[in-house]
Amino acid sequence: MTKASNRIRVAILGASGYTGAELVRILAHHPAVEMSLLTADRRAGKPLGEVFPHLSFVKVPILTNLDEVNWAKADVDAVFAALPHGTTQKVISTILGANKKVRVFDLSADFRLRDGEAYKTWYGHAHEALGLQARAVYGLTEHARAEISKTDLVACPGCYPTAALLPLKPLLADKLIESGDIIIDSKSGVSGAGRAEKEASLYSEVTEGMHPYGIASHRHAPEIEQSLTDSAKQAITVTFTPHLAPMSRGILSTKYVKLANGAKPADLQAALKKRYAGEPFVSVLSDKQVPSTRMTRGSNRCVMNVFADRQPGRAIVVSAIDNLVKGASGQAVQNMNVSFGFTETDGLQQEALFP
Amino acid sequence: MTKASNRIRVAILGASGYTGAELVRILAHHPAVEMSLLTADRRAGKPLGEVFPHLSFVKVPILTNLDEVNWAKADVDAVFAALPHGTTQKVISTILGANKKVRVFDLSADFRLRDGEAYKTWYGHAHEALGLQARAVYGLTEHARAEISKTDLVACPGCYPTAALLPLKPLLADKLIESGDIIIDSKSGVSGAGRAEKEASLYSEVTEGMHPYGIASHRHAPEIEQSLTDSAKQAITVTFTPHLAPMSRGILSTKYVKLANGAKPADLQAALKKRYAGEPFVSVLSDKQVPSTRMTRGSNRCVMNVFADRQPGRAIVVSAIDNLVKGASGQAVQNMNVSFGFTETDGLQQEALFP
Amino acid sequence: MTKASNRIRVAILGASGYTGAELVRILAHHPAVEMSLLTADRRAGKPLGEVFPHLSFVKVPILTNLDEVNWAKADVDAVFAALPHGTTQKVISTILGANKKVRVFDLSADFRLRDGEAYKTWYGHAHEALGLQARAVYGLTEHARAEISKTDLVACPGCYPTAALLPLKPLLADKLIESGDIIIDSKSGVSGAGRAEKEASLYSEVTEGMHPYGIASHRHAPEIEQSLTDSAKQAITVTFTPHLAPMSRGILSTKYVKLANGAKPADLQAALKKRYAGEPFVSVLSDKQVPSTRMTRGSNRCVMNVFADRQPGRAIVVSAIDNLVKGASGQAVQNMNVSFGFTETDGLQQEALFP
Amino acid sequence: MTKASNRIRVAILGASGYTGAELVRILAHHPAVEMSLLTADRRAGKPLGEVFPHLSFVKVPILTNLDEVNWAKADVDAVFAALPHGTTQKVISTILGANKKVRVFDLSADFRLRDGEAYKTWYGHAHEALGLQARAVYGLTEHARAEISKTDLVACPGCYPTAALLPLKPLLADKLIESGDIIIDSKSGVSGAGRAEKEASLYSEVTEGMHPYGIASHRHAPEIEQSLTDSAKQAITVTFTPHLAPMSRGILSTKYVKLANGAKPADLQAALKKRYAGEPFVSVLSDKQVPSTRMTRGSNRCVMNVFADRQPGRAIVVSAIDNLVKGASGQAVQNMNVSFGFTETDGLQQEALFP
Repeated sequence: MTKASNRIRVAILGASGYTGAELVRILAHHPAVEMSLLTADRRAGKPLGEVFPHLSFVKVPILTNLDEVNWAKADVDAVFAALPHGTTQKVISTILGANKKVRVFDLSADFRLRDGEAYKTWYGHAHEALGLQARAVYGLTEHARAEISKTDLVACPGCYPTAALLPLKPLLADKLIESGDIIIDSKSGVSGAGRAEKEASLYSEVTEGMHPYGIASHRHAPEIEQSLTDSAKQAITVTFTPHLAPMSRGILSTKYVKLANGAKPADLQAALKKRYAGEPFVSVLSDKQVPSTRMTRGSNRCVMNVFADRQPGRAIVVSAIDNLVKGASGQAVQNMNVSFGFTETDGLQQEALFP
Repeated sequence: MTKASNRIRVAILGASGYTGAELVRILAHHPAVEMSLLTADRRAGKPLGEVFPHLSFVKVPILTNLDEVNWAKADVDAVFAALPHGTTQKVISTILGANKKVRVFDLSADFRLRDGEAYKTWYGHAHEALGLQARAVYGLTEHARAEISKTDLVACPGCYPTAALLPLKPLLADKLIESGDIIIDSKSGVSGAGRAEKEASLYSEVTEGMHPYGIASHRHAPEIEQSLTDSAKQAITVTFTPHLAPMSRGILSTKYVKLANGAKPADLQAALKKRYAGEPFVSVLSDKQVPSTRMTRGSNRCVMNVFADRQPGRAIVVSAIDNLVKGASGQAVQNMNVSFGFTETDGLQQEALFP
Repeated sequence: MTKASNRIRVAILGASGYTGAELVRILAHHPAVEMSLLTADRRAGKPLGEVFPHLSFVKVPILTNLDEVNWAKADVDAVFAALPHGTTQKVISTILGANKKVRVFDLSADFRLRDGEAYKTWYGHAHEALGLQARAVYGLTEHARAEISKTDLVACPGCYPTAALLPLKPLLADKLIESGDIIIDSKSGVSGAGRAEKEASLYSEVTEGMHPYGIASHRHAPEIEQSLTDSAKQAITVTFTPHLAPMSRGILSTKYVKLANGAKPADLQAALKKRYAGEPFVSVLSDKQVPSTRMTRGSNRCVMNVFADRQPGRAIVVSAIDNLVKGASGQAVQNMNVSFGFTETDGLQQEALFP
Repeated sequence: MTKASNRIRVAILGASGYTGAELVRILAHHPAVEMSLLTADRRAGKPLGEVFPHLSFVKVPILTNLDEVNWAKADVDAVFAALPHGTTQKVISTILGANKKVRVFDLSADFRLRDGEAYKTWYGHAHEALGLQARAVYGLTEHARAEISKTDLVACPGCYPTAALLPLKPLLADKLIESGDIIIDSKSGVSGAGRAEKEASLYSEVTEGMHPYGIASHRHAPEIEQSLTDSAKQAITVTFTPHLAPMSRGILSTKYVKLANGAKPADLQAALKKRYAGEPFVSVLSDKQVPSTRMTRGSNRCVMNVFADRQPGRAIVVSAIDNLVKGASGQAVQNMNVSFGFTETDGLQQEALFP
């Protein structure tokens, strides 16, 4: 084990939420990290184990109040911001203003959209750190390593976008699918809604049933479109329907696409295999093996595959991730590994937990 | 309560499966029915309560072996066949040959496809009762009352088709959507796979995860297409992807369609409201109310609604049913009610059970 | 169907909670009841279907605010109070003061303990309607029919007490078990905690795990002891440990008892069978059939059985109910049926829903 | 990472079951182990990823047939036997006869009971390797390190016994509780029944309900009693009731005990804290913190605590484990670590996965 003095010092803001807890779980066995600061305003002064009993056995500092941190003096190398959308932009602005060496990995949506107007449209208020917004790097790791290693602000992608973008970006870039008529039907576990006390997240409201929500109006749609537009080099509009599934973790993303330029479904599969060959966390399955969220529970892996459709000229692209790992905290740690030059798999080697 | 002598006598074949159990649950309080014969070959000789403890308190005959029934002498007015696909066609052929007054409501897939060749293609063997196959009525109740009341063989629709057809048929008939590019993304509870002892149906394999299956190759696709082709008066091919959701009951069906002839999403909603006005078991929701399987658990209701898509010229049509009720046993009882001239809601008035 | 004019008019206070919703579900098909008033303060002015989509299809009045009801003028024959503990006592005091003919069925804990001091100890404040508290009838239906038919205030038992008392009371009355050393290990679904927005009730907190809570300090313990003391005619103290199980409905109650006076486990089973012979909603199982909550989901039934222990002189008594039905709203309706002289099973004949 | 040449070579027999899969998951990142042989008779010839898709990304050999292994020539240092009860005894007899240096860690029940007659009584047939049965070490790690390091056959404890014994053994040894009247009420996830295709393990049979099973007749009772008798130095009979909970993993064990020799509940807590101080995998909680299976999911930890009862002279002892880890595969690896002198936590450092 690396000596503490060789480890970077990491702060986790919002340690009482699910993505905060996942960061602790993952970093607890990271060889190059020391968790030196954890904030959770409503729970300040308490040990993390009172808030998350399953983390009672990890040695971390007592929870503190974010407002009480003096960022100019805090000896911190990296900050993970796992705070609610909207409140994050000011916090990060303050941190980056006070400490020039720190690197920030933001898990909120605040810095994902590059365009101030788009942010305002979808989030209902003007962005409060427009300069930062413009320069933040969208941290879909496998597609942004060079930029990540140069920036001090990584906007970690949303869970739905991560699952959708990993297979779609190469297919658009390679012009194997048409840029119109992309339909994304996604199914998510409830932890995506966080630990907030909402009636809609109660066990009795969620178990043993399914429904769509945010139909044609979910904020992850513009995020997906921004990144796909980059790949396609033309404006993309997608159909995106999220569904709430009775499970705590996991995103299954079923995409319906039109084949372009005479491509066959097997060509799509081959292109994805080529693009992600050697990637430790993206697995293109073989033959007709079907992606399942169970292949990813607790792991940082994205699994995907391509299937021929019965309607000629169409294919079905399926991908799955754990929304809290590759869709949030795991990808954030992966980005930190890239940023600091650590081995990219450090802290992230755990296999999926099944059953 | 009607006197026993005024009640019709009903046989349930396959009472040890989930759809058989649902028939007993529903018919237990039907005012015009007496359950006089229950078969379950492997459990013959046992009381139903040993096979389904929750039905221990319903008064029904001891389970018998199907082979031991003498159909010429059996005093039975109606037969519900809840047997596995493939074995049903011979059984029903025998029954209808032996008893001219009996009416059969088949819950298997054996008589759903009208075309012998299509059956052979999708089910892997020649049909053994081609004559019956051709004359059976496809019992999607709200679209087949006249035919149901005249026939002695009703092929009750599959669960996925019921959820998909109820909203799509009127939209195609009214030419409000295009006949191409219909995409049906469905999510089903596990009870749809029946009570068979399969690894894939084990609790630990199903809970807390999702995956698609039978991609572009599920047998309900041709069933859906046959019925949509009737409505559209032109050949229809659909994209159909079933998913297994971690729940015992319920089908959620999300359909992506292209608007035709200048129709707006609101026109689709209005057309469905008009088509199903007065229907006791089909509810077109208002405004943007979202269908959920929880609105249908244990009830015979289908709920549906239409939503504008972000891609211009597209709409999203969502419907939900309980696969074991409107998707199987409930619709079968509804068909029996139509066939015998009973009040159509008899035995089926229970509200959904939530939470 | 009875004409509306012959039906009693019923008010449901707290219709936005789970027990309120269950009352609506059950009463929707009760032949002698008209739901004429529903209150839900935070949701006043809305249709019930907005609060509980699964009840969108039941015809009931718009939700109103409790404070706006003029009880002297309200034409109401029966009131079901499904309000939070503590707030109910004042409300009922007001209602009974304003309307001399109304009968109240209270689902809260406010009137279950007869003793003002015990109430104060367990609920943390003095009771505000001590006179009513003393005269309320504890409505464990099968043990209180005579009293129920004479009173205007029935305190419906808690869910844990109902499951524990139904088997234990006759065994103590018949001196078949010792009055000391009664251990009650109970497992409950989450809906027992109501629809309140609590972190501990979130899906992700509850699914796929178990834990005890309120160990040796749950408020249902004194309620159980009060009723057992009545049966035993001596003071009883019990060990009572509730557990939260990952399910929405159901209570399973496992009781460990010592045999008295040379009784055998079979004697206990026989005594229970004798005591509950002819009861429509209490079923003593035969032989070694094991009670399961699945035998009761959605139904008003309590199932129970007795098993020999390996430790000599001991027996294990198991019972199961649906906490929202026999443990709350179903028993409340059963009590109303007794009170008004209706057939006791009216509205309550539904079989359990499985799977 | 240790070079392959320095690693021990490990065989896993029964790699297509849940405990076999857990062994692979855990050993995949063990620094001193190479998985060199995996058997799974019905799946022989297939890659593990076809049987357990979540393990598709672990590099292990193709599955082979147990009968085809030549144990005299197989270059194997350790064997994990994750085979069904009854079939294991012959297999292990063969292996230990053919290879004198190999050490066997058996996860079945075959070598847990020391007494041949007891085995015959509970398992219904004479033991086929009585000599081995007598000398096998019962591998409850924290209580058997010395013996484990000396033997070539470790019988890994059952899941229920592990959860019950860890807290009860020290309390009996220290005479803090009475040896009679020990009641163990346990709740288990379904994976304890393995991956066998049984109706009772189907999702629809298990979800959203609870029931006890094997009341007073479960085979883990004599196993618990044998080990408690060792600690108490007098014959112990326990009451033991297992319950099936709707979850895949986890055992919650609620124990009702009588205090002895004037002990207080706090004395029990203190004794357990003392006994397990420094243990990496046994955590005695503080104050009134309540054990939950969620604190252990996917981890090798056992959590426990002691609570005062309301009945004087009684206490309630609660413990929780993950049945597949500390209750099976994790403890087996822990025993291997002890046996081979590895760091005891190697491969087992993962925190619990929540939510």
